[in-house]
Amino acid sequence: MIIILKEDALEAQIDELRRDMESKGVVVQDIRGESKHMLGLAGDTSSISDEALQRVDFVDRVMKVSEPYKLSGRHFHPGPTVLDLPGGVKLGGGAFAVIAGPCSIETEEQILSIAKDVKRSGASFLRGGAFKPRSSPYSFQGLGLDGLDLLKIAREKTGLPIVSEIMSSEYLDVFARDVDVIQIGARNMQNFSLLRDVGSLGKPVLLKRGAASTIDEFLQAADYLLMGGTDRVILCERGIRTFETATRNTLDISAVPVIKKKSHLPVVVDPSHGTGYWDLVFPMALASVAAGADGLMIEVHNQPECALCDGQQSITPALFDQLMRKVNAMREVI
Amino acid sequence: MIIILKEDALEAQIDELRRDMESKGVVVQDIRGESKHMLGLAGDTSSISDEALQRVDFVDRVMKVSEPYKLSGRHFHPGPTVLDLPGGVKLGGGAFAVIAGPCSIETEEQILSIAKDVKRSGASFLRGGAFKPRSSPYSFQGLGLDGLDLLKIAREKTGLPIVSEIMSSEYLDVFARDVDVIQIGARNMQNFSLLRDVGSLGKPVLLKRGAASTIDEFLQAADYLLMGGTDRVILCERGIRTFETATRNTLDISAVPVIKKKSHLPVVVDPSHGTGYWDLVFPMALASVAAGADGLMIEVHNQPECALCDGQQSITPALFDQLMRKVNAMREVI
Amino acid sequence: MIIILKEDALEAQIDELRRDMESKGVVVQDIRGESKHMLGLAGDTSSISDEALQRVDFVDRVMKVSEPYKLSGRHFHPGPTVLDLPGGVKLGGGAFAVIAGPCSIETEEQILSIAKDVKRSGASFLRGGAFKPRSSPYSFQGLGLDGLDLLKIAREKTGLPIVSEIMSSEYLDVFARDVDVIQIGARNMQNFSLLRDVGSLGKPVLLKRGAASTIDEFLQAADYLLMGGTDRVILCERGIRTFETATRNTLDISAVPVIKKKSHLPVVVDPSHGTGYWDLVFPMALASVAAGADGLMIEVHNQPECALCDGQQSITPALFDQLMRKVNAMREVI
Amino acid sequence: MIIILKEDALEAQIDELRRDMESKGVVVQDIRGESKHMLGLAGDTSSISDEALQRVDFVDRVMKVSEPYKLSGRHFHPGPTVLDLPGGVKLGGGAFAVIAGPCSIETEEQILSIAKDVKRSGASFLRGGAFKPRSSPYSFQGLGLDGLDLLKIAREKTGLPIVSEIMSSEYLDVFARDVDVIQIGARNMQNFSLLRDVGSLGKPVLLKRGAASTIDEFLQAADYLLMGGTDRVILCERGIRTFETATRNTLDISAVPVIKKKSHLPVVVDPSHGTGYWDLVFPMALASVAAGADGLMIEVHNQPECALCDGQQSITPALFDQLMRKVNAMREVI
Repeated sequence: MIIILKEDALEAQIDELRRDMESKGVVVQDIRGESKHMLGLAGDTSSISDEALQRVDFVDRVMKVSEPYKLSGRHFHPGPTVLDLPGGVKLGGGAFAVIAGPCSIETEEQILSIAKDVKRSGASFLRGGAFKPRSSPYSFQGLGLDGLDLLKIAREKTGLPIVSEIMSSEYLDVFARDVDVIQIGARNMQNFSLLRDVGSLGKPVLLKRGAASTIDEFLQAADYLLMGGTDRVILCERGIRTFETATRNTLDISAVPVIKKKSHLPVVVDPSHGTGYWDLVFPMALASVAAGADGLMIEVHNQPECALCDGQQSITPALFDQLMRKVNAMREVI
Repeated sequence: MIIILKEDALEAQIDELRRDMESKGVVVQDIRGESKHMLGLAGDTSSISDEALQRVDFVDRVMKVSEPYKLSGRHFHPGPTVLDLPGGVKLGGGAFAVIAGPCSIETEEQILSIAKDVKRSGASFLRGGAFKPRSSPYSFQGLGLDGLDLLKIAREKTGLPIVSEIMSSEYLDVFARDVDVIQIGARNMQNFSLLRDVGSLGKPVLLKRGAASTIDEFLQAADYLLMGGTDRVILCERGIRTFETATRNTLDISAVPVIKKKSHLPVVVDPSHGTGYWDLVFPMALASVAAGADGLMIEVHNQPECALCDGQQSITPALFDQLMRKVNAMREVI
Repeated sequence: MIIILKEDALEAQIDELRRDMESKGVVVQDIRGESKHMLGLAGDTSSISDEALQRVDFVDRVMKVSEPYKLSGRHFHPGPTVLDLPGGVKLGGGAFAVIAGPCSIETEEQILSIAKDVKRSGASFLRGGAFKPRSSPYSFQGLGLDGLDLLKIAREKTGLPIVSEIMSSEYLDVFARDVDVIQIGARNMQNFSLLRDVGSLGKPVLLKRGAASTIDEFLQAADYLLMGGTDRVILCERGIRTFETATRNTLDISAVPVIKKKSHLPVVVDPSHGTGYWDLVFPMALASVAAGADGLMIEVHNQPECALCDGQQSITPALFDQLMRKVNAMREVI
Repeated sequence: MIIILKEDALEAQIDELRRDMESKGVVVQDIRGESKHMLGLAGDTSSISDEALQRVDFVDRVMKVSEPYKLSGRHFHPGPTVLDLPGGVKLGGGAFAVIAGPCSIETEEQILSIAKDVKRSGASFLRGGAFKPRSSPYSFQGLGLDGLDLLKIAREKTGLPIVSEIMSSEYLDVFARDVDVIQIGARNMQNFSLLRDVGSLGKPVLLKRGAASTIDEFLQAADYLLMGGTDRVILCERGIRTFETATRNTLDISAVPVIKKKSHLPVVVDPSHGTGYWDLVFPMALASVAAGADGLMIEVHNQPECALCDGQQSITPALFDQLMRKVNAMREVI
């Protein structure tokens, strides 16, 4: 059982409530996020009346939840959450949006050219990696802060809000100031310190599923963000690790309807990382939309064969344009 | 390198060719299926001219193939194969068909009722399990030959050709006589004796992907069937085994476009086994079609809550009807 | 709940018992193996007294088992089973034995030479594949019946009992007559027809774990054999399929102590297939023994570099001899 | 090809070398760690003579390495590395050591009691979690800095050097000052910012393998640490994620000999997290030692049934004592 306290609850009141619960043999855990304060009750709660608790004036809400995730769950918020995002974009509950751009930001010319192209085709956000998580320390690690500056230029010229990945709390201030939607990558899905720090900014966050994370763990990671203080979390399926080697990962499209049953948060799909090959991006993007995804995240590069990172999974602006037409046509049918 | 011999090649001619190749230091393997005779050349083949071989009059074709699969590969047959199936149904290369019916055949009333319903909604085949592969020997094992008899009644009454799974070569004659499309289940995908035996019947075969089989292994299993003598093989993706437990299997929809690149054979998807939950069947069926599947295999039961097997993954005839409408609408867009 | 009936139970008695159970609202399933007859009770069994049932004179035993496996489980047989095998070999419950030999039987000289070597080093069984399950139809498929004849010559000359894999019920008679321990390979672990047929012979069976099978499924497959009529089943861990590609499979050594908790049957480990590389066989064989394995199955070849199959995972007779010395030394400590 | 520069190489010299290489059509990448400076050459390096490079006076060493990992590889350091660790402990290349202690530090009494017990049984290090990475934000997160203080008291009283996990660079100074061996957990194995930061401290680091990381990725993560500046990295296998649910993870013991072939770094095994069940720890610890592990990491708790975290996988001090005796006996044989 979880007791969510009102913001104006006094410490003295909370202490008294806690002692009262403990006297009934229940273990009480204090759960404090930046903006939320809860008491978690564990052990034998049979003597606790949730109706009585609900009537306590500094209690906001009482939840009986057996699932390991709470704030991201449908129990907590039965309808779908529709996010209000920068640029006036809405996402979730029927509102659909596409994030597109290169894996890495390389030059001003590159990012501007791609930004204009994807905007014209109907993308709502520009993505671009400035800090790149690479398995090898000998691989290109991204342009860093210079990359973010180029991304900001592209935002200024096109009006597209920007999405970029944060890899360390060291740059929390910069991302808070400069980036519209902060991405947390698959490898950091269980970097709990980073989740808490990013959540505390109150900004929109795009959280990628870890390549070996169950959906329940994914939602618990979202709970870390929500506990931190933000209420705008976008979940992103991007493939899981399996024995199959024909694709870079196995894109788990069934995660879309499964998450929609369990969670109120919007779900987007990244078929670029999810498959690892540009010619699989098109069919898998359509499949994701057909399965009910609220959006897509697509790697687009003007010269995929020269990309500094992940060129083989990037599509050209021309193919992206075709994809957007097909996606729009299909969404009308569904 | 693979040399495919013409049907009328004489043994003496073949022997001479083999000795000639061996004299050049190449290892020659004799590959004999029911209807196809080939010589496989391994080792250092640099001194062999494929053009010269191509000109030998009893040689049908010479292939240089590094992929482990041969007959099922695009190298062997560049365009998509369009299968001519019983009931005048076509499958592959743009021709789309749906197989529907209960997991297990239970009673005449059940199978007849479902058959009529799925036919009305547009299914092209009736599926029904008579012999059921069950992990536990204590579970319901199917009605056996009595089940096949009921399935034949349903075919007679509706005109739908029937699909049913064979588990053992013991019933080869019965399946050859009574079943229109013989299914080989995921657990028997590498039961090579059964593959050879069923292939030798020359009938259409629906081959399910093993839950832990790579796509390359899947195509090699198809090669066993094609070597056996049939030229009508339908590949069926039905989910692979991963760490995720929210679904029964992880439906690998990316297998559809991957197989289409590698193979000329038609691919259908079974979202019922692939997910294990009836409410995931609808979105995952649509996703499969969007990804380019040539068909679907759907478990439909008139009383899912009473089904003797896999009721939780079966949809009702009413939901199947809705699904068919949506599938047809979506196919027009794609 | 499972009711195991005595062999002399009359059909009339059983029918009456069944009707009695059904009148109490319980679903009764008839489970008939070659040598065992049981009734499985499902549904609400709260009104059934197992003590009363135990007193019925044609009832042998009543088991309350929630695990999916029954006959292979510790509930059914609390102590470890010690198998009496051909050649006077004992296996299980402290008795340890090693099976060694080539992946495939190639020539009389080869099999004889290896047989003498492994016998001298202390192997209790000679293994050799006559029928080989190969992913590709274009790979060497084994010598077939000729291979079995060579294996019999080696048995005659060395006195070692022989282990060989059966791939199809077609050769049931030959294996029943000629082979001492019949092996069922990983790919056929859920070939339920073959399990039933081989079980019915009453001979010792070595059952390999499927590369994607859980331990619970492995024990249920053993139940098919035990239901069939044999009471001598050896379980063999041989690696499972994971994302790791540095080894051919991931050898799941923890399966040894897990199976020992769940089952009374002896467990041996095959580090040759389990790793795929000869230089990993030595350390992993020792690790298996340290973890409590009742035996080992090791691929030994006199000329691994020329082996027709799986040479890279075979060790030489000299290395096998060293391994046996180390295994024996280590077993004294444990 | 990788050129490792001497510490006193001048920027002007390096620039000239780089330009020279680029003029030959090679792509040159500047790789700078805290203490190491290298140039990575990619593209067509056929015109580059490694012998000539080796003779350049500010070049320390030239490596031709196709493996994705470099500094942790055998190519870079052919013999095994023997680490000099705090407390005069040696690890690797025949030197064996055991790390033991509770999952979480709970009270002074608890940690002191366990520390004394494990020291008496022969452990070389005391482990204890102060910051706990938990899937759920609602679970006990560790005592934090108070926990580290208790761990320091236990070190003072027993003389055992201490091992504890760092979760964020925020506490880098504290760990640098207070902790003898800094642990990086499985979930942070690809938290590259943390790897770089911790590596730069120059202290010994215990790096756990990610649950879905290949061995090649594991060694690349070690390269991040070595690039950072430390030369004392301990690799820890702790189980990978597979489909099997009978254990918490599948302990990949074959990783021990595989890593020993690829890398010069010492490898220890954690059978507590690797299996998730206390009664599997004993056999799997022995198996790890038999496979050649350089050490073990074992969770020991004086009251496992009351542990705040992972009690089910902790063994008692009494069982730990038995385990140490058996491990020592077995090591004499091997």
